[in-house]
Amino acid sequence: MILAFEIFFSDASGRTIVTPTAVDYEFKLDLTVPKVGLLLVGIGGNNGTTLLGATLANKHNISFENKRGVVKPNYYGSVTQASTIKIGIDKETGNDVYAPFNSIVPFVSPNDLVIDGWDISGVPLDQAMKRAQVLDVTLQKQLHPYLEGKKPMPSIYYPDFIALNQAERANNVYNATASGEVRTDNKWGDVEQIRKDIREFKAKNQLDKVIVLWTANTERYADVLPGVNDTADNLIKSVKESHEEIAPSTVFAVASILEGVPYINGSPQNTFVPGVIHLAEKHNSFLGGDDFKSGQTKVKSVLAQFLVDAGIKPLSIASYNHLGNNDGYNLSSPKQFRSKEISKQSVVDDIIESNSILYNKESGDKVDHCIVIKYLPAVGDDKVAMDEYYSELMLGGHNKISIHNVCEDSLLATPLIIDLVVVAEFLQRVTYKKAGESDDSYEGMYSVLSLLSYWLKAPLLRPGFKPINGLNKQRQALENLLRLLVGLPVNSELRLEERLK
Amino acid sequence: MILAFEIFFSDASGRTIVTPTAVDYEFKLDLTVPKVGLLLVGIGGNNGTTLLGATLANKHNISFENKRGVVKPNYYGSVTQASTIKIGIDKETGNDVYAPFNSIVPFVSPNDLVIDGWDISGVPLDQAMKRAQVLDVTLQKQLHPYLEGKKPMPSIYYPDFIALNQAERANNVYNATASGEVRTDNKWGDVEQIRKDIREFKAKNQLDKVIVLWTANTERYADVLPGVNDTADNLIKSVKESHEEIAPSTVFAVASILEGVPYINGSPQNTFVPGVIHLAEKHNSFLGGDDFKSGQTKVKSVLAQFLVDAGIKPLSIASYNHLGNNDGYNLSSPKQFRSKEISKQSVVDDIIESNSILYNKESGDKVDHCIVIKYLPAVGDDKVAMDEYYSELMLGGHNKISIHNVCEDSLLATPLIIDLVVVAEFLQRVTYKKAGESDDSYEGMYSVLSLLSYWLKAPLLRPGFKPINGLNKQRQALENLLRLLVGLPVNSELRLEERLK
Amino acid sequence: MILAFEIFFSDASGRTIVTPTAVDYEFKLDLTVPKVGLLLVGIGGNNGTTLLGATLANKHNISFENKRGVVKPNYYGSVTQASTIKIGIDKETGNDVYAPFNSIVPFVSPNDLVIDGWDISGVPLDQAMKRAQVLDVTLQKQLHPYLEGKKPMPSIYYPDFIALNQAERANNVYNATASGEVRTDNKWGDVEQIRKDIREFKAKNQLDKVIVLWTANTERYADVLPGVNDTADNLIKSVKESHEEIAPSTVFAVASILEGVPYINGSPQNTFVPGVIHLAEKHNSFLGGDDFKSGQTKVKSVLAQFLVDAGIKPLSIASYNHLGNNDGYNLSSPKQFRSKEISKQSVVDDIIESNSILYNKESGDKVDHCIVIKYLPAVGDDKVAMDEYYSELMLGGHNKISIHNVCEDSLLATPLIIDLVVVAEFLQRVTYKKAGESDDSYEGMYSVLSLLSYWLKAPLLRPGFKPINGLNKQRQALENLLRLLVGLPVNSELRLEERLK
Amino acid sequence: MILAFEIFFSDASGRTIVTPTAVDYEFKLDLTVPKVGLLLVGIGGNNGTTLLGATLANKHNISFENKRGVVKPNYYGSVTQASTIKIGIDKETGNDVYAPFNSIVPFVSPNDLVIDGWDISGVPLDQAMKRAQVLDVTLQKQLHPYLEGKKPMPSIYYPDFIALNQAERANNVYNATASGEVRTDNKWGDVEQIRKDIREFKAKNQLDKVIVLWTANTERYADVLPGVNDTADNLIKSVKESHEEIAPSTVFAVASILEGVPYINGSPQNTFVPGVIHLAEKHNSFLGGDDFKSGQTKVKSVLAQFLVDAGIKPLSIASYNHLGNNDGYNLSSPKQFRSKEISKQSVVDDIIESNSILYNKESGDKVDHCIVIKYLPAVGDDKVAMDEYYSELMLGGHNKISIHNVCEDSLLATPLIIDLVVVAEFLQRVTYKKAGESDDSYEGMYSVLSLLSYWLKAPLLRPGFKPINGLNKQRQALENLLRLLVGLPVNSELRLEERLK
Repeated sequence: MILAFEIFFSDASGRTIVTPTAVDYEFKLDLTVPKVGLLLVGIGGNNGTTLLGATLANKHNISFENKRGVVKPNYYGSVTQASTIKIGIDKETGNDVYAPFNSIVPFVSPNDLVIDGWDISGVPLDQAMKRAQVLDVTLQKQLHPYLEGKKPMPSIYYPDFIALNQAERANNVYNATASGEVRTDNKWGDVEQIRKDIREFKAKNQLDKVIVLWTANTERYADVLPGVNDTADNLIKSVKESHEEIAPSTVFAVASILEGVPYINGSPQNTFVPGVIHLAEKHNSFLGGDDFKSGQTKVKSVLAQFLVDAGIKPLSIASYNHLGNNDGYNLSSPKQFRSKEISKQSVVDDIIESNSILYNKESGDKVDHCIVIKYLPAVGDDKVAMDEYYSELMLGGHNKISIHNVCEDSLLATPLIIDLVVVAEFLQRVTYKKAGESDDSYEGMYSVLSLLSYWLKAPLLRPGFKPINGLNKQRQALENLLRLLVGLPVNSELRLEERLK
Repeated sequence: MILAFEIFFSDASGRTIVTPTAVDYEFKLDLTVPKVGLLLVGIGGNNGTTLLGATLANKHNISFENKRGVVKPNYYGSVTQASTIKIGIDKETGNDVYAPFNSIVPFVSPNDLVIDGWDISGVPLDQAMKRAQVLDVTLQKQLHPYLEGKKPMPSIYYPDFIALNQAERANNVYNATASGEVRTDNKWGDVEQIRKDIREFKAKNQLDKVIVLWTANTERYADVLPGVNDTADNLIKSVKESHEEIAPSTVFAVASILEGVPYINGSPQNTFVPGVIHLAEKHNSFLGGDDFKSGQTKVKSVLAQFLVDAGIKPLSIASYNHLGNNDGYNLSSPKQFRSKEISKQSVVDDIIESNSILYNKESGDKVDHCIVIKYLPAVGDDKVAMDEYYSELMLGGHNKISIHNVCEDSLLATPLIIDLVVVAEFLQRVTYKKAGESDDSYEGMYSVLSLLSYWLKAPLLRPGFKPINGLNKQRQALENLLRLLVGLPVNSELRLEERLK
Repeated sequence: MILAFEIFFSDASGRTIVTPTAVDYEFKLDLTVPKVGLLLVGIGGNNGTTLLGATLANKHNISFENKRGVVKPNYYGSVTQASTIKIGIDKETGNDVYAPFNSIVPFVSPNDLVIDGWDISGVPLDQAMKRAQVLDVTLQKQLHPYLEGKKPMPSIYYPDFIALNQAERANNVYNATASGEVRTDNKWGDVEQIRKDIREFKAKNQLDKVIVLWTANTERYADVLPGVNDTADNLIKSVKESHEEIAPSTVFAVASILEGVPYINGSPQNTFVPGVIHLAEKHNSFLGGDDFKSGQTKVKSVLAQFLVDAGIKPLSIASYNHLGNNDGYNLSSPKQFRSKEISKQSVVDDIIESNSILYNKESGDKVDHCIVIKYLPAVGDDKVAMDEYYSELMLGGHNKISIHNVCEDSLLATPLIIDLVVVAEFLQRVTYKKAGESDDSYEGMYSVLSLLSYWLKAPLLRPGFKPINGLNKQRQALENLLRLLVGLPVNSELRLEERLK
Repeated sequence: MILAFEIFFSDASGRTIVTPTAVDYEFKLDLTVPKVGLLLVGIGGNNGTTLLGATLANKHNISFENKRGVVKPNYYGSVTQASTIKIGIDKETGNDVYAPFNSIVPFVSPNDLVIDGWDISGVPLDQAMKRAQVLDVTLQKQLHPYLEGKKPMPSIYYPDFIALNQAERANNVYNATASGEVRTDNKWGDVEQIRKDIREFKAKNQLDKVIVLWTANTERYADVLPGVNDTADNLIKSVKESHEEIAPSTVFAVASILEGVPYINGSPQNTFVPGVIHLAEKHNSFLGGDDFKSGQTKVKSVLAQFLVDAGIKPLSIASYNHLGNNDGYNLSSPKQFRSKEISKQSVVDDIIESNSILYNKESGDKVDHCIVIKYLPAVGDDKVAMDEYYSELMLGGHNKISIHNVCEDSLLATPLIIDLVVVAEFLQRVTYKKAGESDDSYEGMYSVLSLLSYWLKAPLLRPGFKPINGLNKQRQALENLLRLLVGLPVNSELRLEERLK
């Protein structure tokens, strides 16, 4: 298998020299699909209970009735479960041929995941599902027996990191005394508790692998401080000292790394401070993040790319959201919103930088971009995104695209959790070596799984690299990796059969 | 240069077997940029006069003032002139490196095009530009000296093919008698007149090449009849017999083919009946079509692809348009609208067919799709597109995306004309042979230039092939052809530098 | 009670002379609320079954659960049941004081209506309710016992008047032979059958009054022909001759008039040809129509009035709709759509005519106005309206208002049925005489109840009068009539208490 | 002239008793139209220069060309100049008859206003007009001679009250020392300077009347403090002491009151603290405010009223705006935005309170309402408003109206300035007395002109009264006052001619 590397130099004179070079790699995929457990931080929230509902409905083939008719369970909205990949061209007809994404190589099925998790709210999961107001009541009734009385594991609550308004939910917290007082002075103890939870979950369910995924409240940003969380060692030391910048999510990440299980961050906060990445590198453990890219940002990463690639210059993008679920309630607090804003802000940056004909000093090198999230309880989980793209056309003309998008927030986000878990698990089974090296030199991928970027608003990158936000590029990467592993060449869309004589 | 072909079989047992095979091709690009002339059918319309204005403004560097400030001439909205292509990754930083599309290989510059054309309306081009209501008056004033008094060449008018309401415009028609009566009984004579026009234009301007492009009124569909327009010979015979199904656009296409100049169709009518394609194949002449993909359809080919690739199932797409320019006036006639409707209708078909998880007999294998175009004079050239995408999510959930898009119709369409001409000219310079064959076996590409699909609503294909409407796939093809010609590998987005250790 | 009349003359010189004059009237309201029966034509459709569901749920106080929680029954969307009227100003605080609309004078309660009706489809009403896909299944389950097995009375089906696609529904038609052949040659017999149905319904339920309301399929327009349907006598003659322009709705209207019960037309067809109005006048019977004004048109009659009253000039209004219920299916047929289009078209006419500063020969005296309705089954009863208002501001500026409105069609329309019935019944109890005349000179209102205009797209008027479409004017009329009857002066909003010293 | 008063009592038992009573008033209108001067605070801003441009263009009948053709000057968007009032019904035809608003009684014409003003920016008015980017350049060119070199009068700048980002504009400030240092310790001196400016302007232009109108930057809210600005005397004392809560707008208001000229506040800040109102009452001087109601809020005051009056229950209203002019720039500062937010927030309050069927303790007595304003320079003066109204229908149904509104901010606001000035001037000429009193007991209206509410977001009221925000009620009040003055009865819309036999 030859993998072409593209390398680029700029010589002393400033001229551009492109030198294609090639490095030979050999890739290997372990074809055995393991028994996988998934631990959710925030399992009692809207995403957590919707994931439980979705996997139960699909596993037990539970249909339900709503006013439009009978609905069969499915995994719509999941790339791995409900999309296809072009695998070639039919020799006879010249037509493209597609196969289900999850048929190309063996993937774990979401139906087979063993799911549990932590939550600061101790409401049993059937009631939590009801509180979420996501699934139809007729489905909820049928799911009830599977969830009745099941409580989330107690979680960690450091009040400083999430909105004050979450305090009343926090009744299932093991770092609290009997009188309800919260302790934040034994963070290493918290790490050990979480590690114990992971180990016990794995043993009890006889799992081959566990993945931990944060789908809990957005935390405020942690300060990145020299000596505190900048290296693996400093980080461990700071946890042991219960430093105030050690967030609950850091505790979960550290515990996961130390247990060697992948940790994925579905919220915008900067859990992955340099010390955490460093720690994962040291332990060859996997990280993925940040922040589920479910609705508005996903569309934006498609439309902005489209416009700029078409030579049209977006001048401003106004992005407004409102939602009424607990995510919105937590984000109504400024520090938590700030984390979200940062996560959503940068999504067009690489797109702008890719086109210096449109964006340059003379004609203006930025897009006016605003992000607003408002908490309007009335709309519940039916998040609304309203966007306006105002662009410049030739000769002073303008184009205005205004979008009103009614998402069902958790129904869009839950399939992303499935994809992140399924692909992260799969990536653990991919190994490679340089061609010619001995077979025992195969090693696993780099700790930061940037191939998960498709599903994430603010892709976590290997330090020093810039994120690619264009959704198509992100999907191309996944497609071409799968093709590579089964011996298909990179998809060029050249279709020479049709274009040559 | 190795070009991988993908071939696919289904064996007797119904199992799918994918067999990658490879054919070696060698490609050659003639690097000499010729002097190119462009003949527009319908030069006096909104697109024609806007193209004249744009190329003049850019060539002579004419800035103008509007209320927002001074506007410098540019070619925003043109892929070839205002977009970039990723050429590689900076070895130092790992960042993607981009270069202007038209810097990869030599292309003709729109500034250097010699432009003329025909129009059934004899209004001088400066007045036609004013009538179009597209360019700012302050720019029009400066363009006036360049266009003053220039009249389009007389065109062909067969009243049966365009809307009745166009009759009053038709005052510059050579197939009319002095008394104004229109003759439709000498269509071969019309072919010869157009051929003469082409030859004289080429000679007078000392051009290396000419391209003919239809940007005139949408015609009604021509009936495809055995013995009439199904083969090259029958077609020629029918022209000579002035058959009633020979449209003006057929006359222009036949004349162009016989003169060996590429003919591009920017309107939706079926100019390219089988006999025309056959004739072009026989003369190794090039065709491109149909129908500029400027606004709503372009966005749709992006959004529908995005949704389906994300595993989300569009159930209905409602596409409403209104516009007030002469295009809209002509389309307010049912037969002409029907041509447009057909052209716009099929854009999601290949996308639906690509995903049988979402679209199948059991869950429903089609999208409710409606197309409406209304003529509202008040909005002038500021075409408005209003679309609604209603999609199914997991477990009976729904997603609704509603779009309001104010395009400036001609400012979006004109850059497409530039791209079509620039790329069609370039494709004439590409030749190839099988590896190992002798150097004199190089030949040109196949007559139907499906690589122009990016800019066209209803891509014309080699007979027997299905169109690819996904905009990203269309762009990938162009990008990878350019990369191929300069020795760069297909763009995989794998970014292994970042993802391996 | 003094009622001021406003009278206006234009004298010979063209000068305008306004002469306020006053006529004294005395009004009387019969305060006894009768027992009222409602007969719906099309009871098995979406509106019919939703009305049944709504009145049952309210009468029996049936709450139900959906994912957002427990929903209590209510009559939201009904002016008479859920809106208020200003009755005065609190002397102490100066604040406006409001009372429920239906508390001002005695009205019949929708809970007390006895409801039955006809339908060409014989599906039992519980199944028809399910087919409608309007009410939540959890509510449907509780309504089931009340509707189970109840069938609509057989109706009249003249295939020529509704869309061909309705034929398969037409299985409950008494004008059909045993073999299923439809008879259209005994229309007077049909009138007699309907009269018999009305009388039996009234007797069986011991009703004081009956009202008949058409909420069935939109019919095509009937031709208005001299000698056929232009006078009461000609009309009766034509029914007896089974003339082809006698529609089913005419039969229902004639039968209602002859039985002396009010007939209200909720669809757009021209049931009320001159002969029908004439017949009603002769029998002092009441008519109301045409076409429920539930969604897009209602908003339009508010927004257009607002703009013009603000001195802003709408230039174009584009109104697009799509829906997926049976109404949409029937309207997908061109003749039926044409009835709808006519009904929706004129709604801004009187508004435009009211402002000759904005609309005149010189500056343009019309609005470009288009109406589109598309049948997209996927959206079901969730009708979508997309409108764009493009207006001219001072000095060539423009304002663009684009609206995306997701209605739940039948949930919006059903409260209108309630209002029409409740107010029509009430208006039957209003009588008046000129002041000074004897008490036995009281008489009822004029046959055409234009006070129902608030709820109707194309208000039926006394011949010779022009409709008032502005929603606020329509509501003002209702409010001031109620005030008049209880001795309150016309509402002036002058609020002098606050504005004088 | 009899004016009916409505009075309302609630008796001891809690029963409601409505007692209509009547007070006779006689009204008088001085028919002489005076020569009026208008002094704008912020004349160099977008509204100021647009007003200058509009009145000059209309006065001198200046047409101009843009790409859509020749534009004649007009006052579209002005109620007084471009709307009509129903004056009666044509006896012959029964049709409504309308007359121009400004033809009912004599009003000052905007063409005849003498306009000058103050601005903290000293940019000459022709350049300020260019900076505003509102008027077409072809119009600007023709207006240039009228404005060239004219500078605004120096204004007052207290940096604490407006956004920091305005500092660089503040170069025309008389309360600054030569070195540019701003003095805020001589506020009484500032009052005297403004009074002098007013007197000199009046004398120089031989004016009968002057009106002062604030169209400058939004200030932060001033604290209302006992002893500081709660009474007329305390206010004067605080000005003399240069108290820090005395804003520039307070200085202008105090100066205007002391000069006896009406003062109108077009921005949202609370200039009208109790002490200012008290001072105006003492001097029988007129006030009007607050905050021009030009776009989003105006539509909201129409739509929310419509929904609630139709018995539909809005649950949430999300209102997003972005704009790129200096108003937006100033509002990007939190304190100034806060003033705006307060002003926009309360617009639906009285509408909600009017309907206790929809809004009550049990079913929820509020609307989730958010207001967002973002500064996006790219959109310039083309303010964009995006709103979503989410409402509850019968039986748990929902209605969603989403609006995208592109306003041209200053072209909408400027006609409001005209209306406010024209109507305020007219209201100064209205006097009244109780019937039967002697002719010398006529007196003018109360100081706070709540009849201006139609044009104002947060209507200033007589202390103790609640604002009426419904746009129709506001217009009704104006209409009925005009009718009253010319002897026409209150408009009832009863149309008895048509509805009785």
